[in-house]
Amino acid sequence: MRLSTLLGPDLRQTLEQEPEALRDALDEFHEEDIAEIAEDLPLDDVVALMRALPDELAATVLERIPDERRADILEKLKPEEAATILVEMEPDDRADVVQTLELDLQKTLLEVLDQVDPEVAEETRELAAYPEHTAGGIMTTGFVGLAPDTKVWQAIEEVRRLSREEEVENVYYVYVLAFGDKLQGVVSLRDLILADPGQTLADVMTENVVRVHDMDEQEEVARTIAKYDFQALPVVDQQGVMLGVITVDDVVDVVIEEATEDAQRMGAVTPIEDTYFGTGFLAYWRSRVTWLVVLFLGGFLTANVMEGFADELQRAIVLAMFIPLIISTGGNAGSQSATLVIRALAVEEVRPADWLKVASRELAVGLCLGLVVGVLGFGRAFFTAEGPGVPLALVVAISIVSVVTVGSLLGSLLPLVIQRVGLDPAVSSTPFIASLSDVVGLLIYLSIARALLHLP
Amino acid sequence: MRLSTLLGPDLRQTLEQEPEALRDALDEFHEEDIAEIAEDLPLDDVVALMRALPDELAATVLERIPDERRADILEKLKPEEAATILVEMEPDDRADVVQTLELDLQKTLLEVLDQVDPEVAEETRELAAYPEHTAGGIMTTGFVGLAPDTKVWQAIEEVRRLSREEEVENVYYVYVLAFGDKLQGVVSLRDLILADPGQTLADVMTENVVRVHDMDEQEEVARTIAKYDFQALPVVDQQGVMLGVITVDDVVDVVIEEATEDAQRMGAVTPIEDTYFGTGFLAYWRSRVTWLVVLFLGGFLTANVMEGFADELQRAIVLAMFIPLIISTGGNAGSQSATLVIRALAVEEVRPADWLKVASRELAVGLCLGLVVGVLGFGRAFFTAEGPGVPLALVVAISIVSVVTVGSLLGSLLPLVIQRVGLDPAVSSTPFIASLSDVVGLLIYLSIARALLHLP
Repeated sequence: MRLSTLLGPDLRQTLEQEPEALRDALDEFHEEDIAEIAEDLPLDDVVALMRALPDELAATVLERIPDERRADILEKLKPEEAATILVEMEPDDRADVVQTLELDLQKTLLEVLDQVDPEVAEETRELAAYPEHTAGGIMTTGFVGLAPDTKVWQAIEEVRRLSREEEVENVYYVYVLAFGDKLQGVVSLRDLILADPGQTLADVMTENVVRVHDMDEQEEVARTIAKYDFQALPVVDQQGVMLGVITVDDVVDVVIEEATEDAQRMGAVTPIEDTYFGTGFLAYWRSRVTWLVVLFLGGFLTANVMEGFADELQRAIVLAMFIPLIISTGGNAGSQSATLVIRALAVEEVRPADWLKVASRELAVGLCLGLVVGVLGFGRAFFTAEGPGVPLALVVAISIVSVVTVGSLLGSLLPLVIQRVGLDPAVSSTPFIASLSDVVGLLIYLSIARALLHLP
Repeated sequence: MRLSTLLGPDLRQTLEQEPEALRDALDEFHEEDIAEIAEDLPLDDVVALMRALPDELAATVLERIPDERRADILEKLKPEEAATILVEMEPDDRADVVQTLELDLQKTLLEVLDQVDPEVAEETRELAAYPEHTAGGIMTTGFVGLAPDTKVWQAIEEVRRLSREEEVENVYYVYVLAFGDKLQGVVSLRDLILADPGQTLADVMTENVVRVHDMDEQEEVARTIAKYDFQALPVVDQQGVMLGVITVDDVVDVVIEEATEDAQRMGAVTPIEDTYFGTGFLAYWRSRVTWLVVLFLGGFLTANVMEGFADELQRAIVLAMFIPLIISTGGNAGSQSATLVIRALAVEEVRPADWLKVASRELAVGLCLGLVVGVLGFGRAFFTAEGPGVPLALVVAISIVSVVTVGSLLGSLLPLVIQRVGLDPAVSSTPFIASLSDVVGLLIYLSIARALLHLP
């Protein structure tokens, strides 16, 4: 039976007449696919579907439904029904789901959860309290932690038991915890299987455990896990007490989220939390207006510079013809450098301390790029209908070489400075650098013109 | 003992005098850390270190050393030594390493490999033949594939044996292959452990296997694995024959790589393969010159537009004062829209078919943004020292509202069009849109001025 037929207009009929057939059929499908179809159903039908599904499947499907719609579903369900589904979720997903709900509904559900399973309720409160982009905010508390004197065979038994009871999601490592749950060592599942069953974990563990702290930025976590190719990373508090693990599949989501946010910051947009269409009109407007206004006010400087050279422009209006071309070329060169340096900073290929090396490379490449477009600019200016001919063409060419070089330097060094003072270099950088090059480019061009041209 | 002490200036002494102590000490460290320190050592020392390390550790360390340096090391080692290290690598990593070598060295090593292990040599040739950014290019051929009538207990034994013999890296799933290795079903390791040992794989497998094809783009693979939160994804050919698997940790690298490339394309840079400092001067220059020239030639249009309005500009030079401000504001609005739409396309939140919805949203938001900066622009123009006062301020304000709206529309729709015709919407989009808005902005501003102002 095709899934769409099952969940089509006859869903309610199917639910009433052959609930077993539906369950069996859904068993074959990935929860992501069920969630996608559930998105398009009327709300009442989804609620009916959630009631019909086994709690565990309902939990994994619900996790994958977008925030707002999920909140609607949870509100429609009786609090007791919602709580039994929540209990089946992984601890990190459960906390995420609770975080996205209105405070009233949060409170009601957590109170019911207190009755269903007080431990789960407590854990959910703790996880939901972590700020959103921290290691604590994405970790799960389901992991296998055992004492150093545990025998290898006992550890294997324990892993089996916890997997069977679904206490832990995917086991890649067994963590060895000393007194007070302090993280002492780690044993991979593979090493565990290959070890002599009679040895203790202390005999086979690796002591030098790469770890992150609960308040570390999620970006830092992603970098660590990507660097070492780990399947999972332990999270500890300031005292080294083990709190949870972050698995690599959560990190994929983090990396995508961070890349989107960085791209938006680089485009002078305050990152939007939701999807493009999921973001309300006002929130969308707000994500753009701040930077647009800041850049606009900064742009006033260009008008000031122009006013300062009004006399020259009046005497040779042909000078004005090349202003947009020259300043935008400087801006483009600056954007290129900024893009390359910001990404290199993000993946830690370049550090602020490398500024001199960066500056000398950009100076050299800026000159070589400037020469190419400078020659083209000379040609374009030389063939202008009216005007001072060669002298003008020379002014244009020299200006272009200068703005490309200066733009490259600005574009590469500014992100380093911003990172050095502790800010995010991606924030609005390329439009900001373009605006800055506008002002600098105008100053360069009009000053060179004033110095070299004998105006009437 | 600290790692840096061990691998410090006395490395060669340590290697000669206490090779065992070195091995034991290194055992405690992650190969990534060893690789990082090895990067800073003189070439001869690294080669000596590779010889001293157990082959398996040497293989994992070597994988993590940057391409050029790795090639130098492999060239310095005797081909037989290099081959024994290569044999220890995962199939996908081995193919990647071989791909980065000069053709001569590739040939020599593969010939030696033919003698050491003909099967490995053959497999390496096949994997290395896949284009770089395809599923085939990132998959590994180490997976557990079993016949449908295999009993569960036999399957568990087989997984243990293969892990022990290091034939497979990390097992998350057992793939069920029909006659001719056609992929028929999948069983997760967890389900396998929980199943009745006497059942067959056919009894417990999921038949609806999400899969990718060997020639699929790696970006597509990353999207699929992130969407479903899989640990691994099977790769099949056009006939459904299973070829390999891609694990989620490889996908993290793909996502980071694709984000970097997209960011670079958006900044008008042809993506560079290596790191910022790792890219040679000429390659770096080449990554930037094409787009800089293309955008520069496009910028000639601004000069043409300006020439067309030379008369107006001559009569009221004050008009020229606001040109940079107006066109860069249009460009900024366009960059914002482009950034948001391109990312939304990349994560498939928006499709080209949604163009009407996108256009109406951008029209509305563009007007609302334009009004804000338009009012500010009116103020700035009104207080200009000389000039026509209110009429000029009105012209500036109306132009700003128009360019912000048109910029938003252009910036949002152009990526949709580019994607629709099958190209990558990230390519040079923000600078391209900024350049386009320059031309359109000039036309709008100067036309409005011509229409509304009574020039002397």
